[in-house]
Amino acid sequence: MKKTTFSPLFWPVSLNRNTIYVLDESLLPERLAYIRVKNYEQACTVIRQMKTRAFGQVLLLFYAFLLVIRQNKGRHSQVTVLKKVAQAFNATRPTLPFKFLTDMILGWAAQDLLLETMILGFLEVLQSSRIQQARQVADFIKDEETILTHCNVSGLMPLIGQFCQQDGHRVSFFVTETRPYLQGMRLTAWELQGAGFEVTVVCDGAAGHLMAGGLVDKVIVGADQLAQNGDVANKIGTLSLAVLARHFNIPFYVLCPPASQAATGKDIKIEIRPEKELLEFQGKRIAPTGVKGLYPGFDITPAELITKHIHMEL
Amino acid sequence: MKKTTFSPLFWPVSLNRNTIYVLDESLLPERLAYIRVKNYEQACTVIRQMKTRAFGQVLLLFYAFLLVIRQNKGRHSQVTVLKKVAQAFNATRPTLPFKFLTDMILGWAAQDLLLETMILGFLEVLQSSRIQQARQVADFIKDEETILTHCNVSGLMPLIGQFCQQDGHRVSFFVTETRPYLQGMRLTAWELQGAGFEVTVVCDGAAGHLMAGGLVDKVIVGADQLAQNGDVANKIGTLSLAVLARHFNIPFYVLCPPASQAATGKDIKIEIRPEKELLEFQGKRIAPTGVKGLYPGFDITPAELITKHIHMEL
Repeated sequence: MKKTTFSPLFWPVSLNRNTIYVLDESLLPERLAYIRVKNYEQACTVIRQMKTRAFGQVLLLFYAFLLVIRQNKGRHSQVTVLKKVAQAFNATRPTLPFKFLTDMILGWAAQDLLLETMILGFLEVLQSSRIQQARQVADFIKDEETILTHCNVSGLMPLIGQFCQQDGHRVSFFVTETRPYLQGMRLTAWELQGAGFEVTVVCDGAAGHLMAGGLVDKVIVGADQLAQNGDVANKIGTLSLAVLARHFNIPFYVLCPPASQAATGKDIKIEIRPEKELLEFQGKRIAPTGVKGLYPGFDITPAELITKHIHMEL
Repeated sequence: MKKTTFSPLFWPVSLNRNTIYVLDESLLPERLAYIRVKNYEQACTVIRQMKTRAFGQVLLLFYAFLLVIRQNKGRHSQVTVLKKVAQAFNATRPTLPFKFLTDMILGWAAQDLLLETMILGFLEVLQSSRIQQARQVADFIKDEETILTHCNVSGLMPLIGQFCQQDGHRVSFFVTETRPYLQGMRLTAWELQGAGFEVTVVCDGAAGHLMAGGLVDKVIVGADQLAQNGDVANKIGTLSLAVLARHFNIPFYVLCPPASQAATGKDIKIEIRPEKELLEFQGKRIAPTGVKGLYPGFDITPAELITKHIHMEL
């Protein structure tokens, strides 16, 4: 059996001594570079600046807590400090369920558990769960099928491809460019091509045309948040793909994080990003002067449009 | 009653003596400039370069014929020349039904009709038909409704808005940016804002989210080609909007050109544009090196997804 290799996006954050290294996704694919983070305030800034996205942000949160724990070892005030750190992370972005994660860490701390060991153990389980997710969804892919994906699932897509290959199944990929940040074009296409897969970029509006032409066998996307009832929040454009997949009878799979405390999608707050992220491109305005933009970062796909949730086994 | 004003896009081509003036849509919204066209070969080049789009291309074709007719007045070889011109236009782009138009002109020529008078008369009828289309669709819009549109319908959208206002109905607009050429962001939003309407640009993938949130009352788009059975070819992304509108029970109106000879949408050839139009932005590559792109310029929306075709009365 071939050795599995990982995309740099599969585990985009690491901790080495007192420095966290965060893959700067905003520089990809032109440059593979890491941002050094020395404290939790810097970590929060990196998140706000979208230098790393969904999964990278989760990893960064855990590593930032590890850093704080090491810096405050033995101090009586540790729990107070951890609460402050939790608040800072909770305030960074509304869509990601940071509170779920910070509550978990604070819960461990309150129970006087070996916090560092707990976090490191959790990250290890997280890693093997992600590999399991890729393995699980690969089971649904048949030989010569074409997968359509949107945005970026942090290294899972090339891993899915590799598992398909190990099963003797040739797969190819359509990737939506994913406006306005172009994560599909710039991250997913890059990592799939780097792993040797056949990958074709299309504009977001082309998904219907591809499906109508029988060119898509499966749609696989990730999720930024999973509600208790199975609704998911994911990158803007996901809902459109789910509706199209249903219309054209194409299976729609979602690689899910652990469920958040939101009961349904209606309880998930959709983050409205600054309009300039839509109206400017690489710092230059592309929209007519004075025209307004609306950029909801995410949309909600209701559970009934999802053929199968691929859950994490944590 | 307020005077109706026209967007520069409503009639983007004109003929003055021996020069055709073509609005260079590729420079909008930064610059309002016209390309001078002196012969039909230059006209074909302007079309291939997409300096003007659907409706502008139709106008340019007629004015180029007028030019040729004036230049060849009284010559015995006129019909031979006109056939050559027709062939040149037919070869420029597969999606637009140029053959339908050139056949019509050649038909007039074969019947020894006063060709110049016929063409000028046809253009006059074309203009009043377009105004009628805007008037007709405005009848469906109620007070305080929000219209979602895609790409650009050559000046019809501000006209629809003005007719709504004349009816005492306030309307606002969502415009998809329309990747990769951004005609929605750069043309439609520009002309709507210029006409004083409230207009908000969203990325193409946001349409589902807006509809799910009840923010869209009507979808109105144009069509590059209408088949005999009511299927339409229009800018890539239109099919996705039609499927979404059906899913969310939102009326979907199409402003149609005269029907072409295609029996159904299956008989319409979809033009595949050069991949660099997708993978580059303003001349600079934005996709990872070596990654392929697929850019179908149009998609087919089946008649059954269209609530109402707004036909031209020619």
